[in-house]
Amino acid sequence: MTPPNAAEAVSGVAASAFDTGAPDALGILSELLPHADPAETLRQVEACRAELASRPASRPASQDRISALRSELAARGLNGFLVPVADEYGGEFVPPHARRLSWLTGFTGSAGLAVVLADKAAIFVDGRYTLQVKSEVDAKTLEPRRLTRSSPAEWLKDHGEGRIGFDPWLHTPNDLRQLDAVAAEFVPLDVNPVDALWADQPPRPLGPIRPHDLRYSGRGGEEKRREVARIVVEADCDAAVLEKPDSIAWLLNVRGSDVAFAPLPLSRAILRGDGAVEWFVDERKLVGDLRDRLDGVSILEPAAFPERVDALGRSRILLDPGSASVWVDTRLRSAGAKVSEGDDPCLLPKARKNRVELDGARACHLRDGVALCEFLAWLSRAGPTGTVTERSAADRLLRFRGAGDVFRGASFETISGSGPNGAIVHYRVTAESDRTLRPGDLYLVDSGGQYLDGTTDVTRTVLVPGGEVSPEAKDRFTRVLKGHIAIANARFPAGTCGGQLDALARISLWRAGLDYDHGTGHGVGSYLEVHEGPQRIAAKSGAAPLEPGMILSNEPGYYEPNAYGIRIENLVIVRESEGGMLSFETITLAPVDLALVEPSLLAPDERSWLNAYHSRVRKTLAPLLSDSARSWLEAAAASI
Amino acid sequence: MTPPNAAEAVSGVAASAFDTGAPDALGILSELLPHADPAETLRQVEACRAELASRPASRPASQDRISALRSELAARGLNGFLVPVADEYGGEFVPPHARRLSWLTGFTGSAGLAVVLADKAAIFVDGRYTLQVKSEVDAKTLEPRRLTRSSPAEWLKDHGEGRIGFDPWLHTPNDLRQLDAVAAEFVPLDVNPVDALWADQPPRPLGPIRPHDLRYSGRGGEEKRREVARIVVEADCDAAVLEKPDSIAWLLNVRGSDVAFAPLPLSRAILRGDGAVEWFVDERKLVGDLRDRLDGVSILEPAAFPERVDALGRSRILLDPGSASVWVDTRLRSAGAKVSEGDDPCLLPKARKNRVELDGARACHLRDGVALCEFLAWLSRAGPTGTVTERSAADRLLRFRGAGDVFRGASFETISGSGPNGAIVHYRVTAESDRTLRPGDLYLVDSGGQYLDGTTDVTRTVLVPGGEVSPEAKDRFTRVLKGHIAIANARFPAGTCGGQLDALARISLWRAGLDYDHGTGHGVGSYLEVHEGPQRIAAKSGAAPLEPGMILSNEPGYYEPNAYGIRIENLVIVRESEGGMLSFETITLAPVDLALVEPSLLAPDERSWLNAYHSRVRKTLAPLLSDSARSWLEAAAASI
Repeated sequence: MTPPNAAEAVSGVAASAFDTGAPDALGILSELLPHADPAETLRQVEACRAELASRPASRPASQDRISALRSELAARGLNGFLVPVADEYGGEFVPPHARRLSWLTGFTGSAGLAVVLADKAAIFVDGRYTLQVKSEVDAKTLEPRRLTRSSPAEWLKDHGEGRIGFDPWLHTPNDLRQLDAVAAEFVPLDVNPVDALWADQPPRPLGPIRPHDLRYSGRGGEEKRREVARIVVEADCDAAVLEKPDSIAWLLNVRGSDVAFAPLPLSRAILRGDGAVEWFVDERKLVGDLRDRLDGVSILEPAAFPERVDALGRSRILLDPGSASVWVDTRLRSAGAKVSEGDDPCLLPKARKNRVELDGARACHLRDGVALCEFLAWLSRAGPTGTVTERSAADRLLRFRGAGDVFRGASFETISGSGPNGAIVHYRVTAESDRTLRPGDLYLVDSGGQYLDGTTDVTRTVLVPGGEVSPEAKDRFTRVLKGHIAIANARFPAGTCGGQLDALARISLWRAGLDYDHGTGHGVGSYLEVHEGPQRIAAKSGAAPLEPGMILSNEPGYYEPNAYGIRIENLVIVRESEGGMLSFETITLAPVDLALVEPSLLAPDERSWLNAYHSRVRKTLAPLLSDSARSWLEAAAASI
Repeated sequence: MTPPNAAEAVSGVAASAFDTGAPDALGILSELLPHADPAETLRQVEACRAELASRPASRPASQDRISALRSELAARGLNGFLVPVADEYGGEFVPPHARRLSWLTGFTGSAGLAVVLADKAAIFVDGRYTLQVKSEVDAKTLEPRRLTRSSPAEWLKDHGEGRIGFDPWLHTPNDLRQLDAVAAEFVPLDVNPVDALWADQPPRPLGPIRPHDLRYSGRGGEEKRREVARIVVEADCDAAVLEKPDSIAWLLNVRGSDVAFAPLPLSRAILRGDGAVEWFVDERKLVGDLRDRLDGVSILEPAAFPERVDALGRSRILLDPGSASVWVDTRLRSAGAKVSEGDDPCLLPKARKNRVELDGARACHLRDGVALCEFLAWLSRAGPTGTVTERSAADRLLRFRGAGDVFRGASFETISGSGPNGAIVHYRVTAESDRTLRPGDLYLVDSGGQYLDGTTDVTRTVLVPGGEVSPEAKDRFTRVLKGHIAIANARFPAGTCGGQLDALARISLWRAGLDYDHGTGHGVGSYLEVHEGPQRIAAKSGAAPLEPGMILSNEPGYYEPNAYGIRIENLVIVRESEGGMLSFETITLAPVDLALVEPSLLAPDERSWLNAYHSRVRKTLAPLLSDSARSWLEAAAASI
């Protein structure tokens, strides 16, 4: 079902997207239709695609816009301004009206920061986006810089002085602290100067918010509020300000549709030590009798938020400096509140999924596995014919997923890359890049679904049949598989953090002098964000230990630039194991392409794991597949 | 050569040690003779041992002393006092006059903190000392608590209020921050109340300080000062206050003898951005023409330190909050200095050993390997006869090490544990615990030497011949060996931190539901402290990447309480490897006991590593060994 706001917003956004010349006009458009009927979405997307194809691309506008921003800054007596990707909720998926970085610079990646000074400007991106940023931004206007090599703070030390403005809603206290050593003065602004320039800025989303049923959430909202209130009190605080929409969605057992790919209700909340909640949300978003179902929750207009923050003036307030806004932090302190920094109190209770959520995760992975196997079976037939492109394959996969009634959309934009495109870690297929699959290509597809009972995220890399794979690619694939198995098979003591396990996934590659430039695993929500914390498996994973019930991805990879990309990703649940140890339960169900495995590189226990996994995939999925997919699976998931 | 201060101090300390009834009277005594002629040391130790044995042990005095401390606190209007192990230089080895915790409570471990309140007192120790603390302190007077389970801050939240005193020389700013959330007021004291009570407190050490020759240090002092000054300037600072004696020893190319086991000159220094150094050191310690050799270094009496700190009042000062004293931090701030927190600027340059230091490390490991092999060969003959005890074995090992002329003493107190004593990670043999080795025992010996050209640290676990090893112990030993090999064989990209590698050493144990409760590796100095930072291999290793030239230990273990302990430790050098990767060069040379290895548990590449290592041990050491040790080694280091 199309959310009520989507249709209205489409025309404005499409126009805006044309204006920017951004390559993701279509992406923006399709994101306006999240959690809708997939068939209807696809029809609309196809219609827009045709229209887009008929118009010429306009020239990059970043030079003019940055000039205009500089005039605006000069008029306000500022020497510079910070433009992050983030919106005022710090989320991964940013609604169209908040895509200020993209509007200003053309850069459409999910992480980055532009610093615009009077005579210089730079854009800082991480390793995932170093190629993309060069193709999207005008390097003469805006110097692309890689975050790990040069931080904004270092760059500002050399180039920045005077008064640098920032929008206090778009930065966290931790963001600002990273600029601590810079001599410039950072000035919070009441009005974002980009908004002042952006004539046709799209409206704020008004996605409907619905209750998230107890049969999916497993715990009542009141019980959750009590638990989180206890955490607040144990931190010696009177209240917590919650600014992460997924925390609020989890806490109140609601799901919204303000952004693409995650059912988030963009909103803020204050939770008191007695469990009472003030929820600041546009009432027009609330569907049906939701208001009546939220006992103990006062619903207030977002405009009331500043005044209620001021009312916390005499209290001790728990604030997460990694996700709170500088605006709230500053306002609390000026109101006289004692700010106590600590993790968002919903973070851990949300990450520790309960039995109902875990059963939901298993159930949606069964459905997701059926869709993926139908897709892979289809691909094994259609792939070699020269009629399948990266984009058509991604569309096809979405159709397979959309067959069920609890499917609510993709959990992120599908990464569908063949041959050299597979080597771009966060590749997004565009009209220009779309490539036809050819026999012998390695094809990497990373995709996921949002289901009422859970969120999926899975990557398979397959050989398009009919061509040969090089011994080198097979060696690399097998090393990635060994890393994947090392995580899947790991047993570890309680208290172990993901950062301790990360190298297990890499050591086989390291031995060959190889590596991959992304984490091994991220936390996954329960019909929430596909990336959630605090759990991670990565070199820098923070201090949060892995705990039973947490869901993570296990996704080592290898990328040979201009040649091929390999990634094998399953989701796993942390579970208790004998002797007080923990281990992982793999819940993703789809075969690993045996055509890419070099069996002689596998140790006996690795081979056993693979055979046992494939046997489980066969037995579990076979009864649910079409005849053709079932016979494909019998061979694809055979024992080796 | 006995240092001039040692003989004078001996009688006072021995008396003090008798008074405390502490079990380590002998330890204190032998530590007063560091870097001396080993044969002479041994003779003196033996004489004292006989005298000690003839006197009855006195009763624990902690109850009376804590009562006296409470009266002292009450007289000063204090509600409590903190007593850490640390001395005013924060080092691992504390000189006798600064062993306040040991004097007050009887606890002799190397890490711990007592909190004495008017009506309650607790002592906090880590996992290494949970058994020891119970045997050493009077639990009725002082409640032993394990640090990982309950922090002093949590305990103080429940029990502490009012004014809690502390000695600002004995705590770092980071120490104090851990107590941040406690409601009590922490009051820095000018005079330590323990010193006020401790009538026969030993004198401060006056160990001679000698130049550390360029043929060992590899870099001139001026060049080092220039490098460190550059780091200070790059941190936007005018000067750094250095309070770590090993940093000063490294920077000035000097070595001292104020504490046992490490050639440290206890002293402080101020380094300016132009490379000029003020060194605050008791002039009586300076040997020969050292003063003239230290061009660019002003030598000042320690009493001048406060005034020179005050003189930094208008500057920006780099201070390491993990090793600076609260005294300096407070004084700088009251003097108006801008304190900029950062790592001790000597830390990284000191950790990255130069070519000369690395050659020295290899050379001293050759000598150390000869001594250890002579010892192990002797043990293989003498062990089964029932005439060898843990203590006599440790003495014998020291004698083998002492044969060479660049040997300067043990780098820490030898851990010599057989059977159940081996399971105590930081076991220290006492007259009461000393155990005779029996055929079939597992015997663990962890020891190291200080040589002019380097510092060694090695552990071997051997089966005392003539008895059977259980299949379980053999399985455990082989899992520990697999972990050791996984580190020794690791290749990893530049930028990798030790915390990422730690699990490689554990995964074989984890798979069997087992683990060990200590880090896998610590940094090692170059004729300096056997534990140095920032490099580590442990779950919590901080953010410092492993860099070429760093020396670390590789020492996984397994401990079966009341039965046996296993640890296999070699030192490794981080070195560059092909393809921009890093790897480890193992420099310790001694066979791993094949009687404890279950070959069927080793993968082919693990077996290859072991055979190649043993072949290198044989070829390198055989020409340097006695005939009997050589023929023992041929069998002990055979291929499997």
